[in-house]
Amino acid sequence: MIMAVPTLSQRSLLGLKGMSAHELTSILDRAAYWDAHTEKQVSVLQSKFVANMFFENSTRTRFSFEMAEKRLGAEVLNFTAAASSVEKGESIYDTVRTLESMGIDAGIIRLKPAGVLQELAAKVGVPLINAGDGNNEHPTQALLDLYTMRSHFGEVKGLHVAIIGDILHSRVARSNYWALQALGAKVSFCAPDNMKAEDLPDAHYISMEEALQADVVMMLRVQLERHATGMLKSAEDYRLQYGLTEERAARMKKHAIIMHPAPVNRNVEIDDALVESAQSKIFTQMQNGVPVRMSVIERALRN
Amino acid sequence: MIMAVPTLSQRSLLGLKGMSAHELTSILDRAAYWDAHTEKQVSVLQSKFVANMFFENSTRTRFSFEMAEKRLGAEVLNFTAAASSVEKGESIYDTVRTLESMGIDAGIIRLKPAGVLQELAAKVGVPLINAGDGNNEHPTQALLDLYTMRSHFGEVKGLHVAIIGDILHSRVARSNYWALQALGAKVSFCAPDNMKAEDLPDAHYISMEEALQADVVMMLRVQLERHATGMLKSAEDYRLQYGLTEERAARMKKHAIIMHPAPVNRNVEIDDALVESAQSKIFTQMQNGVPVRMSVIERALRN
Amino acid sequence: MIMAVPTLSQRSLLGLKGMSAHELTSILDRAAYWDAHTEKQVSVLQSKFVANMFFENSTRTRFSFEMAEKRLGAEVLNFTAAASSVEKGESIYDTVRTLESMGIDAGIIRLKPAGVLQELAAKVGVPLINAGDGNNEHPTQALLDLYTMRSHFGEVKGLHVAIIGDILHSRVARSNYWALQALGAKVSFCAPDNMKAEDLPDAHYISMEEALQADVVMMLRVQLERHATGMLKSAEDYRLQYGLTEERAARMKKHAIIMHPAPVNRNVEIDDALVESAQSKIFTQMQNGVPVRMSVIERALRN
Repeated sequence: MIMAVPTLSQRSLLGLKGMSAHELTSILDRAAYWDAHTEKQVSVLQSKFVANMFFENSTRTRFSFEMAEKRLGAEVLNFTAAASSVEKGESIYDTVRTLESMGIDAGIIRLKPAGVLQELAAKVGVPLINAGDGNNEHPTQALLDLYTMRSHFGEVKGLHVAIIGDILHSRVARSNYWALQALGAKVSFCAPDNMKAEDLPDAHYISMEEALQADVVMMLRVQLERHATGMLKSAEDYRLQYGLTEERAARMKKHAIIMHPAPVNRNVEIDDALVESAQSKIFTQMQNGVPVRMSVIERALRN
Repeated sequence: MIMAVPTLSQRSLLGLKGMSAHELTSILDRAAYWDAHTEKQVSVLQSKFVANMFFENSTRTRFSFEMAEKRLGAEVLNFTAAASSVEKGESIYDTVRTLESMGIDAGIIRLKPAGVLQELAAKVGVPLINAGDGNNEHPTQALLDLYTMRSHFGEVKGLHVAIIGDILHSRVARSNYWALQALGAKVSFCAPDNMKAEDLPDAHYISMEEALQADVVMMLRVQLERHATGMLKSAEDYRLQYGLTEERAARMKKHAIIMHPAPVNRNVEIDDALVESAQSKIFTQMQNGVPVRMSVIERALRN
Repeated sequence: MIMAVPTLSQRSLLGLKGMSAHELTSILDRAAYWDAHTEKQVSVLQSKFVANMFFENSTRTRFSFEMAEKRLGAEVLNFTAAASSVEKGESIYDTVRTLESMGIDAGIIRLKPAGVLQELAAKVGVPLINAGDGNNEHPTQALLDLYTMRSHFGEVKGLHVAIIGDILHSRVARSNYWALQALGAKVSFCAPDNMKAEDLPDAHYISMEEALQADVVMMLRVQLERHATGMLKSAEDYRLQYGLTEERAARMKKHAIIMHPAPVNRNVEIDDALVESAQSKIFTQMQNGVPVRMSVIERALRN
């Protein structure tokens, strides 16, 4: 049997849109391998140089990737660019090409603008892993969400996942939307009108009451400052209409779980007492992020 | 003989208040071991992941911890949060729990607010080392001060230590206050009225002239902007009344030493010419910080 | 044969002014060794602690040094000081002495002020490598430029190098000026009157048309905000008078190369289409920076 050498674009992870169930499952299976691995650190990526290139701040996501890289034994270099100095897609290209010239073997990249990553990846000679690009995709977040669901329910197929909140600005919602459907789950959104995503015409919107009947109730972080002219005037308004309150959580199915990509706004989109409740998987999601990212990084550097 | 496995709270180092002379001495003895160690780096903490979590900026203290961690062979991850994004104790908790979920083995933590660290440490499952929490404690700074005194004088017991300056805002003064007394030293403070600490009712205040007769003259960094309405109108005023000038230093005992936690305000609380004078231990203190922190970090990760 | 142990000042690299052709060639030869080395990482500097001390921001230069340090197997610590907290030469001294006290083996240093590095290096006990000090020198940049020219042309001797742009503020121009002449190249500058360097009275200025006839056309990054009252009112003005446009590049000699220390202002000092053209060595320069810095760092830590 002949194994084809993966191409650069097969080693990169730009998004989950269009990824097959087979490929998704293969990533999750390898994550499970690392999750069960008892050694804290291996030398699989010894002397491989991985750059965390964050053109948008996110200390938590960078930290999770850095843990994954170091657990695999890679050399890690962090590059954080102030938004002010890198505003145009062209500058981002120059920076990434610069780091490539210096000899990195792979790059983790987070970007403010959506829609430039595909073109960027086509121009550079090292695999890139998307750590969030505008409101487009955040594939490793969705993969860790899938992993968390699969670990809890045994399989993703057949689950009903309700994603609640600011769908319009959410790359997490979009990556989950594509991947969950590829694996056979049903995805529903719940959002006020000014937070709905027009780029997903087939998306199915339901009411808050219907969302509470899902197997997975996934809350999104809301940034009310983005919606100054919207109908939701305050955090308390938002909580009353779209927040997962204790009262609403009590009406969820007993077997259902609560998810959130973090960081949470306690008592805005989710009540304080629910964050670490029995049904909440929020810190489990963060824990799962490390083996999932190990799987994705290892995949980027296989040959 | 059975050695009890240390509990999590025994492995953490939140402060020196209440710590026994035995425990303090044990930490200093191990620091002496690392100080005398000829190898620059060992593998004692190989594949242990230590996070430097600085919710308040301090590149020097972070650097000293990072040196200690890397000399012990640990994997180091730095996390620095802008004050603006982490203002509430609750957010700090979420962040620390997040990093814990990601698999860190120990955390070094510096915080702006005083009084939240004990509660935080009770809630997380990894040892925490306090790198300064508000005006409460800065235990590793006091330990390196103790180590410096012990190295110079042979023992701390019986020494008279005068701590001069802004006691009110000083976590260094407080940690030294507790630990020096536990080891049998006499501690005196010298400060203008608006810089005295009301939370230490048994503290003994002396005049600048009396302070100059101590075995250890420890100057504190003054931040005059904190005392806008005070009686000290300018840096020069402060220097004249509470600064260690060359003229005053000449009246110190011949065997006495000058200390300062750094960074110094040259020609404010201490004259420029004294910083590297024969009696000054200021850069020796910084040097001692590394083996002292190695001792504390190793203690946090023993089992 | 007896090899003299190099002194601290022989291990430091503060500038290229006064450096002999022999010494320059020796550094370039060792860079060639590392450039040809097939292993990505060696253990030559295992357990050596190198600090990147950037008192002026430069993520690209810091990244290049960090790659070099890690490829040599060194332990790397980054120290970045906000310009606001370290404004005086004295504070920089205290910081560098502090890091030295903590046990670093060598320091890479970038500074805003010119003229303080020599004095600083004389006072500390570890080798320092200049990563740019004001408008004085940027020796590793010039060394990688020399290396790039030598790789392309076989030797530097006899080349005519035209350096075009803001000579006044350019440390890159100055380091190249000294080193190129030491190796037997001819250096010409081309600049508007308000960007000429008065500290280099022997410098030879030529017109843009003459510059286009050089073997190496080296463009400098222009920062027009530094010249508010100058005769060049806009980026477009600058481009028309001193930019390397496509039209001008077509008149260059066929064997000539284009260089730029990066980051480039596309369509200001150089046209977008030229950055990655066949004659451009811009990304090659960045690539060469890593082996050149490996050579310089190894030299600093030899004994």
